[in-house]
Amino acid sequence: MAVYTDVPDHELTRFLRDYALGEVVSCKGIAEGVENSNFLLRTETGTFILTLYEKRVDPGDLPFFIALMEHLAGAGIPCPTPVKAKDGEALRRLCGRPAAIVSFLDGLWPRRILPSHCAALGAALAKLHLAGAAFAMSRVNSLSIEGWRRLFAATRDRAGEVKPGLADELAGELDWLGDHWPGGLPAGVIHADLFPDNVFFRGEAVSGLIDFYFACNDFYAYDLAICLNAWCFEHDGSFNITKARLLIANYRAARPLARAEFEALPVLARGGALRFLLTRLYDRLNHTEGALVRPKDPAEYLRKLRFHQGVADARAYGIEP
Amino acid sequence: MAVYTDVPDHELTRFLRDYALGEVVSCKGIAEGVENSNFLLRTETGTFILTLYEKRVDPGDLPFFIALMEHLAGAGIPCPTPVKAKDGEALRRLCGRPAAIVSFLDGLWPRRILPSHCAALGAALAKLHLAGAAFAMSRVNSLSIEGWRRLFAATRDRAGEVKPGLADELAGELDWLGDHWPGGLPAGVIHADLFPDNVFFRGEAVSGLIDFYFACNDFYAYDLAICLNAWCFEHDGSFNITKARLLIANYRAARPLARAEFEALPVLARGGALRFLLTRLYDRLNHTEGALVRPKDPAEYLRKLRFHQGVADARAYGIEP
Repeated sequence: MAVYTDVPDHELTRFLRDYALGEVVSCKGIAEGVENSNFLLRTETGTFILTLYEKRVDPGDLPFFIALMEHLAGAGIPCPTPVKAKDGEALRRLCGRPAAIVSFLDGLWPRRILPSHCAALGAALAKLHLAGAAFAMSRVNSLSIEGWRRLFAATRDRAGEVKPGLADELAGELDWLGDHWPGGLPAGVIHADLFPDNVFFRGEAVSGLIDFYFACNDFYAYDLAICLNAWCFEHDGSFNITKARLLIANYRAARPLARAEFEALPVLARGGALRFLLTRLYDRLNHTEGALVRPKDPAEYLRKLRFHQGVADARAYGIEP
Repeated sequence: MAVYTDVPDHELTRFLRDYALGEVVSCKGIAEGVENSNFLLRTETGTFILTLYEKRVDPGDLPFFIALMEHLAGAGIPCPTPVKAKDGEALRRLCGRPAAIVSFLDGLWPRRILPSHCAALGAALAKLHLAGAAFAMSRVNSLSIEGWRRLFAATRDRAGEVKPGLADELAGELDWLGDHWPGGLPAGVIHADLFPDNVFFRGEAVSGLIDFYFACNDFYAYDLAICLNAWCFEHDGSFNITKARLLIANYRAARPLARAEFEALPVLARGGALRFLLTRLYDRLNHTEGALVRPKDPAEYLRKLRFHQGVADARAYGIEP
């Protein structure tokens, strides 16, 4: 939960004058999101999310994120639609920070993942990939192998504080992934962070996909592997093959997996687990007192990594080629 | 900012079945309030605030707070109206905590206090006092002199960490207030915490008074003195007599001050300053790493206390008997 920047009422009122949204009715900082400050904004014409981009987001990436959301929303994906100001720009400044207003999406994100959530997620992810294929801009994934190596270099000396022997385990996995990371798989725009708190549901239907601030160009199947990790393990660490099967089957129904993608799933899942293990480890080691966000547990992703290290092939996820 | 309790979507859905508000559309934890967990709840029928009462609120006091809001809202005060469940009860339980749904109030709280805010506040405070006079329940102010003594006893040994010599200064002030605290002033239900973040405005008009969780029975003029401290000092510590005059004059226009109340204002303002100085000092000394709320600065209230120690009488606030 986080609101890093307080928006004074008079600055907000002035900011809104550049939009055709009517007057501000209310504005509440919301306790979701880790990277940015988010506000639930009500104006005379509707309900919106106001985001102030804080220092963890590279301002140079913002035009990509904004244009992507606009593209996807236009293609029927239930994602936030950037609202343009009277000058036609959706990306503006407020309180000294880049800022944007986007449409508000109904729905609740699921705390208890049901198989039906995984089924709907699979279909939504495939539609997202298909809709993104026509998007003209691109962004390199800064959190792929080279990024993991940088994170490892920044954490290896103190990784043992979190778990004895962790640095050696990470070094070994990085080497292995360097040797086995696939090339040439179908690629395009991926979300790259589609955790349950970024997916809203009304009943069993997906009503919203949010938080596109890690979106980038990479293998589609890597996005699926990230979801496999985030949605198909139980709190006790066990892997729920029913959920995995539903996730992947419903994905394939909309976007069939090539044989090479099927074969690559375990290595992609290892990479996806290592990516979140490393960022959580970094955040844990660099957590400062007074920070408003509690760092997440790196060990959860170490367990997931080890699970994927132990599988023979993608059949372990309940699917056939 | 604070959301101490995450409300799982399935528990929320079940909770809402006991109300006639339709289905949940969305629910966002909001980064306001210090004592409780607050959520901006949208249902098929409207927008509400859902509050989970955390451990700092005595559950035994909740029926008083809920009934008070209901009484005041019924008397036309723009405060949250508790929403009753189908069984007629407004105070229920969610996630193992007492919980209530109240109406959502439009408006923004002012970050930059203008004289016009103080004028409108004075009138709103007087109306609140008049409306509360017919309220049947009562609650002792646990943060009056006896409460201050308990807080002092809990902080005196370490008060010097915040400011050298502070313990002696607090001891002297407590003694002085013990000798000079007035008796027999007009009393009734007061808000007791009417800081700017608890008062919403649309334009220059008060649109909402919130956070009644310190409300109690005490001198009306003490509530006015708390507002004098919270609204009429500038960030540089200077006292803005224009704001004070507008606050008090507009209060008096709706509820005239007796001569004894006028005379007592400086001592009440000293007491009000000491009360927030002591609670902030306590919170500062007992702040734990990982807490989601940054403790406020006790020194701000030490400066306010010293200002009131230096005034000859209530004329220093820009008013005449």
